[in-house]
Amino acid sequence: MGRMSSTLQNDNFLRACLRQPTEHTPMWLMRQAGRYLPEYKATRAQAGSFMGLATNAQFATDVTLQPLDRYALDAAILFSDILTVPDAMGLGLSFAEGEGPRFAHPLRDEAAVAALQVPDLDKLRYVFDAVTSIRKALNGRVPLIGFSGSPWTLACYMVEGKGSDDYRLVKSMLYGRPDLMHRILAINAQAVAAYLNAQIDAGAQAVMVFDSWGGVLADGAFQKFSLAYTAEVVKHLKREADGRRVPVIVFTKGGGPWLEEIAGIGADVVGLDWTVNLGRARAAVGSRVALQGNLDPNVLFAPPEAIAREAIAVLDSFGPPQRPDGGWDGHVFNLGHGISQFTPPDHVTALVEAVHSHSRRQRTLGR
Amino acid sequence: MGRMSSTLQNDNFLRACLRQPTEHTPMWLMRQAGRYLPEYKATRAQAGSFMGLATNAQFATDVTLQPLDRYALDAAILFSDILTVPDAMGLGLSFAEGEGPRFAHPLRDEAAVAALQVPDLDKLRYVFDAVTSIRKALNGRVPLIGFSGSPWTLACYMVEGKGSDDYRLVKSMLYGRPDLMHRILAINAQAVAAYLNAQIDAGAQAVMVFDSWGGVLADGAFQKFSLAYTAEVVKHLKREADGRRVPVIVFTKGGGPWLEEIAGIGADVVGLDWTVNLGRARAAVGSRVALQGNLDPNVLFAPPEAIAREAIAVLDSFGPPQRPDGGWDGHVFNLGHGISQFTPPDHVTALVEAVHSHSRRQRTLGR
Repeated sequence: MGRMSSTLQNDNFLRACLRQPTEHTPMWLMRQAGRYLPEYKATRAQAGSFMGLATNAQFATDVTLQPLDRYALDAAILFSDILTVPDAMGLGLSFAEGEGPRFAHPLRDEAAVAALQVPDLDKLRYVFDAVTSIRKALNGRVPLIGFSGSPWTLACYMVEGKGSDDYRLVKSMLYGRPDLMHRILAINAQAVAAYLNAQIDAGAQAVMVFDSWGGVLADGAFQKFSLAYTAEVVKHLKREADGRRVPVIVFTKGGGPWLEEIAGIGADVVGLDWTVNLGRARAAVGSRVALQGNLDPNVLFAPPEAIAREAIAVLDSFGPPQRPDGGWDGHVFNLGHGISQFTPPDHVTALVEAVHSHSRRQRTLGR
Repeated sequence: MGRMSSTLQNDNFLRACLRQPTEHTPMWLMRQAGRYLPEYKATRAQAGSFMGLATNAQFATDVTLQPLDRYALDAAILFSDILTVPDAMGLGLSFAEGEGPRFAHPLRDEAAVAALQVPDLDKLRYVFDAVTSIRKALNGRVPLIGFSGSPWTLACYMVEGKGSDDYRLVKSMLYGRPDLMHRILAINAQAVAAYLNAQIDAGAQAVMVFDSWGGVLADGAFQKFSLAYTAEVVKHLKREADGRRVPVIVFTKGGGPWLEEIAGIGADVVGLDWTVNLGRARAAVGSRVALQGNLDPNVLFAPPEAIAREAIAVLDSFGPPQRPDGGWDGHVFNLGHGISQFTPPDHVTALVEAVHSHSRRQRTLGR
């Protein structure tokens, strides 16, 4: 991707991921391109459907850049869905209006699991095209993050066939037929690694693995059925592009109890939800990984003064990233979950302003 | 309640709660009287509705005792609902068929919050009558546990008006109008303490506070808006009845990150969900509190051999309750969440058998 090696105008995000000095604490928001923005809704209406949006490089580029035009965010993230990979495996993804995603052919028996294969990456060409198009449109403003669901999180949807509130089917398989579950996870891990590497080839400058459902697993099961396969993915990722390190972020929602183990699988950054005390997490693993998180997205429903107060509390919980010994730890400010579709857009302005101004202040006071 | 001071035939549960020696690890199951049992469904059909069941002392007694007739459980728990208290406050509880609970008058504005009051306990007489009736019917077989929702968990329902998957309304109030939230919580804490004390007066031999939604709060907010008010409840509870200690169990689903703080509020037992490593939790707080938990209820969908294997893993994770120094720590075996309505009843037989036999073996080998 030599053609893309133009200098980044704002590389604070990549630097924080790698625990290098930054001017302010960089921030982006999970689902920052989304339904809370009227301009997103307009493009979505033009595209006709969610997948119409995700499979069209121009639409995907437009919505990815929309939040950057409104807010001084420090990174862009590919607009796509975590279920593209199982869809390419032939499970038949659809989005019913007003409901979540659904698979026409969930994995419910031994024959279905036996037939599962790593998908032909050509079926995911539309994702890589979108990455290249977005990277070009960004033109070095901020780095572009690619992403995938984790092997376990994909498996949840692949077995349940849709979102679940008890994970009964996938856990029945896990406890009753662990051999089948391990086969699904091994295939998912191969597919996810190939998928993320192709995103890196297409221009992604960092990649994030969303282990959205790792936190529903029991201690012991999490390590065997989620973390081991996320580790497998991380191990097979390209870690450099255009002569620059490509940071890997791993985010396990509800993963607080396993922070030390998650920090040990080779990722550069560990994402944390809002239940985790950032100061304690930094003390435990901050010398090995950068931390990303972790404001409760519901804070964005409060008035701007309260938003600023809570954002400052998150920054102060991490503390000034420069350590007393002069070295740097890494903090990327984010929400602990995707931004809600009901968020007032101007509240995000207040958040970005608070994070940038307070984190600059932290750096001044720290000296 | 002198009339009820008959000797308990099986006091393993109370002994484990108080970190006293036990013959086996006592167990009970959250929602053990419930829809997975055909005999429960039959009584429920007779009663006509869920509240018809809960408000009739005879029906409530019948369903509370049903699981004890099937399984060698070591405790009974009052059959009731956590939303009885806000219902008595006038919020108008109803259960629509096939949906969860719903309040006709949720707390959405300052006037509604200002009007909120600790309810007249006479409106909850049906609960205390059920407790007395169940205690009498148990006739000393096993101890009876009373319960309530925590102040925060009740507040979630009172503001949202029903179950929620994002807690947007209650968290908007928390972050935007913390004064209103604190008023609700202070009233809830008073009401819950009075409610549990009346259950103890009516015959409950242990009480449990369900902080089912504590785990959705951010670090910092959890301590201020959930734990502080649960602590307030615990502080005001009667701790003795019939000359015997009445143990208090506090269970915060998703509370793993705050284990040490939860263990410090004066409860005898801390309930843990399945994400928490029991061995590590015991090392951290086992000398101060007993631990209750924490099998994933989805294990009960696996074949009996797998159920036994996973139950043994939970027991071994805690380890033999007798310490090398001869003293005892306390473990009450339970699920990390309520048993699913889809559970095959004979799988519970396998679980009880595995817990009792393996925990007896642990005690033999420990010597």
